[in-house]
Amino acid sequence: MGQNVAHKLIAAHLAGGEMTPGAEIALRIDQTLTQDATGTLVMLELEALGLDRARTEVSVQYVDHNLLQTDSRNAEDHEFLRSACQRFGLWYSKPGNGVSHPTHMQRFGRPGATLAGSDSHTPAAGSLGMLAIGLGGIEVAMAIAGEPIHLRMPQIWGIRLTGVLPAWVSAKDVILEMLRRHGVKGGVNRIIEYHGPGLAALSAMDRHVIANMGAELGATSTVFPADEQVRAFLRSEQREDDFREIVADPDAGYDVTDEIDLSMLEPLIALPSSPGNVVTVREVAGRDVEQVVIGSSANPGLRDFAVAAAIVAGRQTHPRVSFDVNPTSRQILQDLTKMGSTFALIAAGARLHQSGCMGCIGMGQAPANGRNSLRTVPRNFPGRSGTREDSVYLCSPETAAAAALTGLITDPRELPDLLGIAYPKVELPERSSVNTAMLEPPPPETTRRADLVKGGNIASLPDFPPLPDRIQAPVALKVGHDVSTDEILPAGARVLPYRSNIPKLAEFAFTQIDESYPGRALATRDSGGHIVVAGTNYGQGSSREHAAIAPRYLGLRLVLAVSFARIHWQNLANFGVLALEFSDPADYQRIAQDDILDVDDLRQAIASDTAITIHNMTRDEDYLTRHGLSDRQVAMVLAGGMIPWLRRRTPTPTA
Amino acid sequence: MGQNVAHKLIAAHLAGGEMTPGAEIALRIDQTLTQDATGTLVMLELEALGLDRARTEVSVQYVDHNLLQTDSRNAEDHEFLRSACQRFGLWYSKPGNGVSHPTHMQRFGRPGATLAGSDSHTPAAGSLGMLAIGLGGIEVAMAIAGEPIHLRMPQIWGIRLTGVLPAWVSAKDVILEMLRRHGVKGGVNRIIEYHGPGLAALSAMDRHVIANMGAELGATSTVFPADEQVRAFLRSEQREDDFREIVADPDAGYDVTDEIDLSMLEPLIALPSSPGNVVTVREVAGRDVEQVVIGSSANPGLRDFAVAAAIVAGRQTHPRVSFDVNPTSRQILQDLTKMGSTFALIAAGARLHQSGCMGCIGMGQAPANGRNSLRTVPRNFPGRSGTREDSVYLCSPETAAAAALTGLITDPRELPDLLGIAYPKVELPERSSVNTAMLEPPPPETTRRADLVKGGNIASLPDFPPLPDRIQAPVALKVGHDVSTDEILPAGARVLPYRSNIPKLAEFAFTQIDESYPGRALATRDSGGHIVVAGTNYGQGSSREHAAIAPRYLGLRLVLAVSFARIHWQNLANFGVLALEFSDPADYQRIAQDDILDVDDLRQAIASDTAITIHNMTRDEDYLTRHGLSDRQVAMVLAGGMIPWLRRRTPTPTA
Repeated sequence: MGQNVAHKLIAAHLAGGEMTPGAEIALRIDQTLTQDATGTLVMLELEALGLDRARTEVSVQYVDHNLLQTDSRNAEDHEFLRSACQRFGLWYSKPGNGVSHPTHMQRFGRPGATLAGSDSHTPAAGSLGMLAIGLGGIEVAMAIAGEPIHLRMPQIWGIRLTGVLPAWVSAKDVILEMLRRHGVKGGVNRIIEYHGPGLAALSAMDRHVIANMGAELGATSTVFPADEQVRAFLRSEQREDDFREIVADPDAGYDVTDEIDLSMLEPLIALPSSPGNVVTVREVAGRDVEQVVIGSSANPGLRDFAVAAAIVAGRQTHPRVSFDVNPTSRQILQDLTKMGSTFALIAAGARLHQSGCMGCIGMGQAPANGRNSLRTVPRNFPGRSGTREDSVYLCSPETAAAAALTGLITDPRELPDLLGIAYPKVELPERSSVNTAMLEPPPPETTRRADLVKGGNIASLPDFPPLPDRIQAPVALKVGHDVSTDEILPAGARVLPYRSNIPKLAEFAFTQIDESYPGRALATRDSGGHIVVAGTNYGQGSSREHAAIAPRYLGLRLVLAVSFARIHWQNLANFGVLALEFSDPADYQRIAQDDILDVDDLRQAIASDTAITIHNMTRDEDYLTRHGLSDRQVAMVLAGGMIPWLRRRTPTPTA
Repeated sequence: MGQNVAHKLIAAHLAGGEMTPGAEIALRIDQTLTQDATGTLVMLELEALGLDRARTEVSVQYVDHNLLQTDSRNAEDHEFLRSACQRFGLWYSKPGNGVSHPTHMQRFGRPGATLAGSDSHTPAAGSLGMLAIGLGGIEVAMAIAGEPIHLRMPQIWGIRLTGVLPAWVSAKDVILEMLRRHGVKGGVNRIIEYHGPGLAALSAMDRHVIANMGAELGATSTVFPADEQVRAFLRSEQREDDFREIVADPDAGYDVTDEIDLSMLEPLIALPSSPGNVVTVREVAGRDVEQVVIGSSANPGLRDFAVAAAIVAGRQTHPRVSFDVNPTSRQILQDLTKMGSTFALIAAGARLHQSGCMGCIGMGQAPANGRNSLRTVPRNFPGRSGTREDSVYLCSPETAAAAALTGLITDPRELPDLLGIAYPKVELPERSSVNTAMLEPPPPETTRRADLVKGGNIASLPDFPPLPDRIQAPVALKVGHDVSTDEILPAGARVLPYRSNIPKLAEFAFTQIDESYPGRALATRDSGGHIVVAGTNYGQGSSREHAAIAPRYLGLRLVLAVSFARIHWQNLANFGVLALEFSDPADYQRIAQDDILDVDDLRQAIASDTAITIHNMTRDEDYLTRHGLSDRQVAMVLAGGMIPWLRRRTPTPTA
């Protein structure tokens, strides 16, 4: 049986493991992408790592998230990131240059490459025949340092496309159809690979829409072949030389399969408040709309804006509607302006915002409570808009533009009858207005290394020592079952501004559960640290790595739990905290807060994977525990976490 | 002696008093302007007043300040304001339509009219030969209700302009020259009137720049004649019929005079952190610049953006610089886009933001601490940018554009030599792209009155009862000297979101001084209220009327002070709090917090303007006090404040 595109990409980058679904594999990474919300921590991790210079083909730091700048912290983050790019040899994409995913695709994407990004929509680059994966910050830091990434080999899910999209139906409706059929967990542990004759009429930017929102199905990634559409895209970006064809072998097979006849699709919409709540627009037509937002990496292309502009051109948006337009990038806004689309949008009543993510991630544009907002963005989770009781729908630019005019959810296929609007034929320029002046290249290798510029709110990552051979420490906190990372380290406007400042951030650790924890924990740090005891499913929820780093900073060495949520468990290992599960769950009940626990010969016990016995000195009892760490993770935990482990393996750079 | 323009405007609207500098006069108001940050309270005041319908020629509610929308409150304010316009018969200018001052000038301004606005830059309309005055919210509410406004007759300050501005020097440099000569208090109790041959080459929008920043001199207002430049402006706005000539009589005189030879001016700049710190650009050339911001009501015209666009066209902004462009209005952005200037700005690296005030009022665009930001906005008070330790300079669009290119403070006259840029000759279109679709007219008088739409954070104004004849109440708080309104009611992100919700806002009253005040004060409200005792200069600082309303809501009836700051003293009267000054300042020391004070026959005593004796029941002492209220203010205080007073005088509308 021949190879599909996903297998070809994986095989070409395999650095370890077997390509059997479920087995751990290691992949070499060619390119990395970081954005500013996650990137500041990645840069601090590179600093802690002592990295001399990025070892990838290309690594780019984008500034697209924190663009509102309501106080000095955002501007200082930007300055820090720029200096880090100079320091470590990364590209710097200035505020205003654009959203990472489409900008990366336009300027750096190349068929056959792997891309690791600290953003969940990184798989959008799969539109070019790349294998692109979203990861936690430290794993991207590792990739920048030249290390392979590790993941479980996914199943490859072949989606055969046939037919051609009808008028008023576009790429967003294809991915909404996938979500309608399979829901938000349908893609877990899978790479979605699109193939078949239906691809011929889908441009690379259309494919970006579909690959981007593969994340909403929970997929590990999405890949498309690198075919003539990709060649045309690279040609328009004046990079045709970067093209190389990558298509599935004629007899390629897939682990799982499905098929979509594009000609049968109609306008779809995801209801509040999940991308999986998909129905036809017809079913909900007539509901009042107070806001329409177009833009984001889930409808980033020139076409997506131009089609909306053509629909509203010469007309006025409904008096009730705020029509918010977020251009994806400076380049796309230039082309839109050249084409006359910017004028059409403004004249119709659009609020034209700066290029960036903006409303997609709740950076402004929050609607009134309970008022319907139609958006072309990828996600509508509750509160993501910035409004607690929001009511956000996800749809195509065509459906969004129709609602902007009528003030109601409207099937855009009604527009010819309703307002005499024919489906616009959008003519795109053959060549994009390539303008790279807001993309600052890395300095030459020979340049003297720049200093990091750290504003008052940016603190270096703390150093963490290796795991000691004996832990004799108090249980500083005993928590219940299903404790989430939100309880371990809250997010929100009060805490997030300190994302680049671990000592300050640590003051919020566990305060949702026990306000006295940070003070009590810190007191243990220099005298052997402390232990947290937890019930089942410890660390569920958000993947934020701060929930491991902040307690670690306060002296956490060991978490004893009945069971762990997967990502937080990985994060604990990444930051050198030993995570042990009770062999007998009933032992959880036998330990009380403030008990002193003791475990000796720890390094040997972990390395040999034997059961580990914990002695409760307060009660004179023993508990049997075990860890499920891979050899790589054992080495990391022994070293004190990924950074000291990697630093030890990497020849230390001269300062 | 003939009349100057200011005298003509005042005489035509005089509703009471003598036109002698220092005497109180009453003025009939033709038009009002409110913006969203102050407008929500004005609309609640109209509701409390029971107003049926606006009694002005035109009243417009603009939404230009709170456009970031980081949570639901801004969008709900916008919805409330729109419903209030429908309810009270006001025009509604949607978010995105533009900044109030230039938009009002373009659409509604007419020579000879008076304008009252709840924004300190309202005098910008003086550019059209109007008399335009910035006032507190309740005074604008009164004007909407058809009442005259009251002020002390100002001196008229004639500034004779001669000559013609040289290349690279523009209107901003004229007002910076005024600030250089006279400082930020130079215009106090004055109306600035420009006249002379130098006017001929200053367009109406140039004059807007100068009139707008008359506020920075502390002037009551600024007026220009309505001459051929005004006619040309109105013609370009397709409103030539609204023109009528208003010029000073040939033999008109002025109370004070000065003269500026425009041909002698050079590029000027106000250093951090006061508009009065003006020097020549030459003197500070070469300093690093990290941010350049163009826009705001202090450089709002098409020319101001077009000249900057022409300077940067075909070039790239410096890598260090964030170049933020805030279009003034939808209309101006349309014309800029038609002219190709939008393209030039974007291509040069501008971050093009939505139309509105934006960075001018710290709504985003906050720079890094200590980094230089050059702005064409009217004010650079410390922290106004949103950054605590900001370093903001004020300059012309020419000087701003030069810095955007070089990354340094640069005299724009150097650009020909430095970069080969000739001073651009900007050709403006003869006709503006008039587009009124985002300006919703008031409903016809015959329409059924709309309901106010109040989101969860908008509460009606509380009712305040008349002044009782006897106050026997505890001193709930004794404070020191120079207590500012910031201490009485703090501003900032924690408090400001409650600007439309007095009960919630009151929870912050005096908490900077004594956290227990709100609780203790509220406990007195239904049992006779309470008293505050203060030293000298009580209520200095910001004019916010919330500092009177919030303590009043908690039961404050009487403030006894050694002396008061003027605006807060007026605000107390406006909201029915009696303000008394000790006849013997030494008595201030004799009273302690929690003393019970008693004053009887109060209504009679105030009305007859005799000294008022306060008995301290706790110490069995008497203190002599006095008030300086005008008859109008006495009537207001007796009624319980301006709203109950006006409501009593106004025929009660049928509900």
